[in-house]
Amino acid sequence: MEALAALVRSGSRSALSKALTLIESTNAHHQQKAMELLKLLESASGHQQFRIGVSGPPGAGKSSLIETLGCALVRLGHKVAVLAVDPSSDISSGGGSILGDKTRMTKLSSLADAYIRPSPSRGTLGGVARSTVEAMTVCAAAGYNHLLVETVGVGQSEIAVANMVDCMILVLPPVGGDELQSIKRGITEVADVILVNKADGATRLPALRAVATFRATTSLRPSSKHSWSPVVLPVSAHSGEGIDRLLSTLDEYLAKMMASRELNELRARQRTKVAWTAAEDVLLGKLRSDPGVARLYRSMLPDIAKGQLGPRRVATQLIEHFLRSYSTFDNNDGCRV
Amino acid sequence: MEALAALVRSGSRSALSKALTLIESTNAHHQQKAMELLKLLESASGHQQFRIGVSGPPGAGKSSLIETLGCALVRLGHKVAVLAVDPSSDISSGGGSILGDKTRMTKLSSLADAYIRPSPSRGTLGGVARSTVEAMTVCAAAGYNHLLVETVGVGQSEIAVANMVDCMILVLPPVGGDELQSIKRGITEVADVILVNKADGATRLPALRAVATFRATTSLRPSSKHSWSPVVLPVSAHSGEGIDRLLSTLDEYLAKMMASRELNELRARQRTKVAWTAAEDVLLGKLRSDPGVARLYRSMLPDIAKGQLGPRRVATQLIEHFLRSYSTFDNNDGCRV
Repeated sequence: MEALAALVRSGSRSALSKALTLIESTNAHHQQKAMELLKLLESASGHQQFRIGVSGPPGAGKSSLIETLGCALVRLGHKVAVLAVDPSSDISSGGGSILGDKTRMTKLSSLADAYIRPSPSRGTLGGVARSTVEAMTVCAAAGYNHLLVETVGVGQSEIAVANMVDCMILVLPPVGGDELQSIKRGITEVADVILVNKADGATRLPALRAVATFRATTSLRPSSKHSWSPVVLPVSAHSGEGIDRLLSTLDEYLAKMMASRELNELRARQRTKVAWTAAEDVLLGKLRSDPGVARLYRSMLPDIAKGQLGPRRVATQLIEHFLRSYSTFDNNDGCRV
Repeated sequence: MEALAALVRSGSRSALSKALTLIESTNAHHQQKAMELLKLLESASGHQQFRIGVSGPPGAGKSSLIETLGCALVRLGHKVAVLAVDPSSDISSGGGSILGDKTRMTKLSSLADAYIRPSPSRGTLGGVARSTVEAMTVCAAAGYNHLLVETVGVGQSEIAVANMVDCMILVLPPVGGDELQSIKRGITEVADVILVNKADGATRLPALRAVATFRATTSLRPSSKHSWSPVVLPVSAHSGEGIDRLLSTLDEYLAKMMASRELNELRARQRTKVAWTAAEDVLLGKLRSDPGVARLYRSMLPDIAKGQLGPRRVATQLIEHFLRSYSTFDNNDGCRV
């Protein structure tokens, strides 16, 4: 792991990919190695990376925006990594295609100073937050000072990403006021920069109108940050118009958030939260993979299905069994509970 | 508990309220009593209750619809209970006022055969699902053969409620096609009956247009049930227009779902799921209230905040401590791990 850590730090792309794969592995041996690797990389990195989340409804042009913004950042001399997050859940995630379709970012992926992780982090909310934060750490150690995180799906994943980045960009299509209003509040509430995309050609005027409408509504809403009020800008990921203004806005955001020390506070809060949800995720993982619990649960299923064994009794019995069996299996001192 | 169970079964409203309060209690002694009570009531009840969830965006008129539908059901000789669900979470729940504001259902709450639980079930998703399902069991034992569950907030709570009812009603305001389309897909996907409300006076025509638009889109989408395709209807909770048609649609739904045995399968699936999430909820509750874990977590916070102690190491150490300490405290046989 010392060798892999050194290779990651030296900027090797294959070492970076290998490290990221290790982090996402569910194999126990790999997980142990990932822990060692992260311990080596965590001390080295972290503070030199600007983490930007990009969310928005399907069809708004998130990937095109990431490509155009990423290329612009590379031209300014930055190293840019792109990750994607897909917390799968009960709620069917909106579907939309995702980075796996690498061809969508052909320009960016051809640049030496850009790294695109093709597959999104998938899994439970807590697990995804953990592995994404770890991926950020590894990318930071590899010298990527800008990190773009694309959200997949709706609702949940925006909130999840907002809880792990420094700045949240919301990309919207150039639609009318009514439709803009109805775009879920939760999303606009966590946005620091709201972009109305496709401000070019025939959709230029609708986009400018949408910007005006959105500025009016955004100014009425309390900002989620003390040192920053959300900014609404028109852009065209296609023509590149407005990207300079976006870059200067991001600079200004970072400068203000650092000057007020709000960025440090935000990051501390995020890390604390991600660490706790990761702990919950680990515990639930142990419950879900416990063979004794699974056996007991299966034996209860007929009565549960008939409604004769309610959730409270099931829960109590399963958890008692879990904690007891866990302690029994864990201790090799012959002490039975 | 035998006495309370008998009183609940006899139809005493105060016994019902007491039982529901017991179920929601977080006090360990009450929880033990609740378990005994449920054991007594679970065998008695269950299959004679039609459980209907009502969701929809704020302003659509969910409560008025519940009131009008509830009164109509009582007139037909049914006993109707109304519950509400509010799974609090990271995502700020939409806000909207809730049953606590009992004055909103003045007519329904004045009827002898209607019972309105004034406060919504609050808490984690797993906990809310458990206590709501238990409340359903208690209401069924008390003879309420119709149960209406109002959702509070957006997204999460609709899915949560859809996972515990027989039939899901979505109430929409009489808005234009564009806005209807943008109403979150996830919600319409779980709806068995879609109502466009306020089909009266000046909003009658827009409501009928919305019904037509929605019928066209709904018919294209695969249904979540085998024996039923979603039905779109105009109603006016205010004038009562369309409520008869809603009643016959609900009858038809229940008849088809019972004839195909899909209702039994649906309920079995739901019960299995609620039981498992209740188990996860109990386990996480133990983690969150473990004083040793809290102490260890607090001692880690400075390093976590600085980014020098990543989520994986935190999670591993906290869970190891939890499982170890749990087994130590739980066993009173002097055996230390």
